[in-house]
Amino acid sequence: MHIGFLGLGNMGSPMASNLLKAGHQLSVFDLSNTAVAELEQKGAQGCASVAALIASAPDVVISMLPAAPHVKGVYLGEDGLIAQLTKPTYLIDCSTIDPHSAREVAQAATAAGHRMLDAPVSGGTAGAQAATLTFMVGGEAEDLQHIRPILQAMGKNVTHCGASGNGQVAKVANNMLLGISMIGVAEAMALGVSLGMDAKTLAGIINTSSGRCWSSEINNPYPDVLDNTPASRGYSGGFGSDLMLKDLGLATEAARLAKQPVMMGAAAQQLYQAFSLQGNGHLDFSAIIKLYLKE
Amino acid sequence: MHIGFLGLGNMGSPMASNLLKAGHQLSVFDLSNTAVAELEQKGAQGCASVAALIASAPDVVISMLPAAPHVKGVYLGEDGLIAQLTKPTYLIDCSTIDPHSAREVAQAATAAGHRMLDAPVSGGTAGAQAATLTFMVGGEAEDLQHIRPILQAMGKNVTHCGASGNGQVAKVANNMLLGISMIGVAEAMALGVSLGMDAKTLAGIINTSSGRCWSSEINNPYPDVLDNTPASRGYSGGFGSDLMLKDLGLATEAARLAKQPVMMGAAAQQLYQAFSLQGNGHLDFSAIIKLYLKE
Amino acid sequence: MHIGFLGLGNMGSPMASNLLKAGHQLSVFDLSNTAVAELEQKGAQGCASVAALIASAPDVVISMLPAAPHVKGVYLGEDGLIAQLTKPTYLIDCSTIDPHSAREVAQAATAAGHRMLDAPVSGGTAGAQAATLTFMVGGEAEDLQHIRPILQAMGKNVTHCGASGNGQVAKVANNMLLGISMIGVAEAMALGVSLGMDAKTLAGIINTSSGRCWSSEINNPYPDVLDNTPASRGYSGGFGSDLMLKDLGLATEAARLAKQPVMMGAAAQQLYQAFSLQGNGHLDFSAIIKLYLKE
Amino acid sequence: MHIGFLGLGNMGSPMASNLLKAGHQLSVFDLSNTAVAELEQKGAQGCASVAALIASAPDVVISMLPAAPHVKGVYLGEDGLIAQLTKPTYLIDCSTIDPHSAREVAQAATAAGHRMLDAPVSGGTAGAQAATLTFMVGGEAEDLQHIRPILQAMGKNVTHCGASGNGQVAKVANNMLLGISMIGVAEAMALGVSLGMDAKTLAGIINTSSGRCWSSEINNPYPDVLDNTPASRGYSGGFGSDLMLKDLGLATEAARLAKQPVMMGAAAQQLYQAFSLQGNGHLDFSAIIKLYLKE
Repeated sequence: MHIGFLGLGNMGSPMASNLLKAGHQLSVFDLSNTAVAELEQKGAQGCASVAALIASAPDVVISMLPAAPHVKGVYLGEDGLIAQLTKPTYLIDCSTIDPHSAREVAQAATAAGHRMLDAPVSGGTAGAQAATLTFMVGGEAEDLQHIRPILQAMGKNVTHCGASGNGQVAKVANNMLLGISMIGVAEAMALGVSLGMDAKTLAGIINTSSGRCWSSEINNPYPDVLDNTPASRGYSGGFGSDLMLKDLGLATEAARLAKQPVMMGAAAQQLYQAFSLQGNGHLDFSAIIKLYLKE
Repeated sequence: MHIGFLGLGNMGSPMASNLLKAGHQLSVFDLSNTAVAELEQKGAQGCASVAALIASAPDVVISMLPAAPHVKGVYLGEDGLIAQLTKPTYLIDCSTIDPHSAREVAQAATAAGHRMLDAPVSGGTAGAQAATLTFMVGGEAEDLQHIRPILQAMGKNVTHCGASGNGQVAKVANNMLLGISMIGVAEAMALGVSLGMDAKTLAGIINTSSGRCWSSEINNPYPDVLDNTPASRGYSGGFGSDLMLKDLGLATEAARLAKQPVMMGAAAQQLYQAFSLQGNGHLDFSAIIKLYLKE
Repeated sequence: MHIGFLGLGNMGSPMASNLLKAGHQLSVFDLSNTAVAELEQKGAQGCASVAALIASAPDVVISMLPAAPHVKGVYLGEDGLIAQLTKPTYLIDCSTIDPHSAREVAQAATAAGHRMLDAPVSGGTAGAQAATLTFMVGGEAEDLQHIRPILQAMGKNVTHCGASGNGQVAKVANNMLLGISMIGVAEAMALGVSLGMDAKTLAGIINTSSGRCWSSEINNPYPDVLDNTPASRGYSGGFGSDLMLKDLGLATEAARLAKQPVMMGAAAQQLYQAFSLQGNGHLDFSAIIKLYLKE
Repeated sequence: MHIGFLGLGNMGSPMASNLLKAGHQLSVFDLSNTAVAELEQKGAQGCASVAALIASAPDVVISMLPAAPHVKGVYLGEDGLIAQLTKPTYLIDCSTIDPHSAREVAQAATAAGHRMLDAPVSGGTAGAQAATLTFMVGGEAEDLQHIRPILQAMGKNVTHCGASGNGQVAKVANNMLLGISMIGVAEAMALGVSLGMDAKTLAGIINTSSGRCWSSEINNPYPDVLDNTPASRGYSGGFGSDLMLKDLGLATEAARLAKQPVMMGAAAQQLYQAFSLQGNGHLDFSAIIKLYLKE
């Protein structure tokens, strides 16, 4: 299949590479010429603009962009994908954006005769490289059926979350809970240790008790409790605090528009904002435990 | 072994029964004559007072009392266990109390030549009846070695948490995290549904993603997501909201004395307090999701 | 001066009336024909559309609209005020919207040769009727100098807050603090009374101590502490909880975009959101104390 | 009148001096010999122990101690004031402690035939030196009538707050609100400035609007907004962050025992605890704004 791919950043670039490996024909565009050139070397056709990519007449377009304004910029408007693609096209936005924007774009796409799916991912850059991403997909089940092989060339799990926008809803809800439980684990570990417990013993008990969660078992924030975690290498690598902050911002903003309270979610957002203000945004999100440990 | 058992409430009564089933000789006391009479019918020797229980000269004393003042009342003071027991005795307090009080009592016991362990439990009344409780034990390892068979007559898991008081520390840290993650799950589920997702689909995604935790997998608070949970029978049964409130109070108070911040833990405590004020303290602690759903 | 007035709701209608009383020539538009008719009876020229109002060629346009999308709708776009007004015009937006949107609109206006000021108000419908509103104005000082008499026909205090958008910043910052301190007063009053104090005595002490604030002195939320407050008439009248919720949402959203933590502001927003979910959004914002009182 | 004075710290020492200046006969005790010696030089009779002070047979005893355990230690027990004073005595505790402890001590005093008042102060060391303290008094009105002249020798305002313990309730409620509004002002100021406003302009607007409070008007936390405030001299002097933390701890602990939610109060406590953990406890409590400013 001929696929157009927009956005060749840390995530998009390895995702596009995996599509090439799977044998797809690829037209790519990014503002960075270097990123385009790199994909060209792997066999993709580089495009000098969105318009050029559109002119290549792909059957499917995949986008992987930083935030909602970029997505709206590329899809909507007179020069955008939706208006300019001359045949009905499958449009898959893998960016993480708010559900309201995702639905606004999908509605415009559908009105113009295209088939649109929101398909944000989890798994980070490691998952993008290893083609082990999880896709949370919103849109028509039959459309997902059609493009599922494409997603499976880039990831391991493809989950249908329901109607348009629900991929974003699932991601935002899951990551809000992730942020809350990470801070919860940080507080529980720091409290236990300050009261005299050994960190590994405490983690062991929590992980066999009702407090257990992904953050305590897989990415425990207390230093040296687990091997090969960010917490055991100075919080480098992993899922950055500023990315968690972005997702918590999407969650609270979506909650605001839905008139839904999220008291712990908002507290988590604010704690990550305060942590970022102190210059820690580049550290893995488990580094939030620094707020709770004496320096 | 001759065991003295103090406190025959919803937890203590079935625990004492399991000790009888395991063949131990039991002297029991409770302020409720009915509770004592019930254990007498099962083969225990009823005592009319703490003094009478002390006079029966048990080798081990187990207490299961509501709160720190009761524990201090029974152990400390001129007429208490520590002063009046005439031979060195193993003292096991299974009550859930704050670590500082537990250590204060244990210190007095040790000074008087006794061997004391704090051994709070998790597993609720169902676990007490089925002898499947988990014991989190603080104190000397060799003392635990000695009394381990007794605890195993009442429970399935016995975990050594380190020095005196650490059983309480482990319980308080775990349950604080449990309270935080339960509210986190409640918010994530309510947010996702308000944004248009199906509750079961969302729970399924969370439970295979980084948001997964005991509260999402085992005791999901959204109605009818799981069978046989409090959430699927009007929030009856389970671990009461007011018990969670009590444990969160122990956690924040222990944190205050340790000069340790617990921002999410304190928020959780306050939300359960507000929920209790509205008359919901008797409901399972997953009912906190009611704060997030339209009536 | 010939003034065009857009938006004749609870606030806009009495504001427009006061301009008529001050002798100004008025062209008015609102989606509600009734609202327009009412102003016509008082001497205004009713317009059937924004285009008609533009065609009347006013020297000054004042808008008083519910939210940012309405403001953008009226000012921006091909058919909007900025593009269609054929001569340089003073544009005064009295709506309460987020500072980013205010600056976006003002920038477009300036680029088209108009002079724009953001001038949100405080004082409520009572202040609008009595012409005692406070205007917080962002924009050029000399432009404010020019239109100051117009604002003074509708209000008592006109404060220059600095450059474009700063009127909105001042309002959002002040109202966030107001929401926080109102909840703070509610908690302090409810705590004191639950600990055995008389409410009036406590309010008296706070109001002569370091806890004093507008919410304790002027709009004390505890019933019957002050006469003629919403709290003493079932929380009717006053500044609605849902309006406070809207302003707290503007504050936290502006903070998010500015990467600025507002931990108490976010907590206040969430508490008002939870309060609104329970069906209390129409009550005065001092009614938030209901979260803290037994029913 | 012959007054016994216990506790000659930063507050107690100048308070005792003012009693001497007013012509009272004074017997004093403190664990610090230096502090006692200093008062002896001013005309007091130094006592080597609490027992010696009791033996001096004062008509009134005033205590100014750090926390509840010290107060209980001095008043209760076999060797304490209540048991050992041989004649009915007026007992005035000016320490800031939790209301429950205050009532426990007062009850014991009354049962023993003494007349006890709780009389915590506000005004800080400056107020203690200048004899301008405010006393918040709990206890019988006629007892206050009797000892009012003594308090007036040390302070300017003496307010009767109702029955025993209510002096502590008033202080705890007021200071909880003070902590909340200080953080609220910090957030509002930091938000406004980060959105482009001048700090002095913003403070001016808030202080004439509904956000105004003691913390914005008298002790504004933003640097250089007001002269002669801690914020304008590096946050030295003033009311220390750790003292605010202590009072917030008293408030949340009293709330816990009263089963009363204080969501913002608990958030304020946690923020001051986090601030203290970072090594800032000695700074004036307005320094909490540092959590919101880029370094």
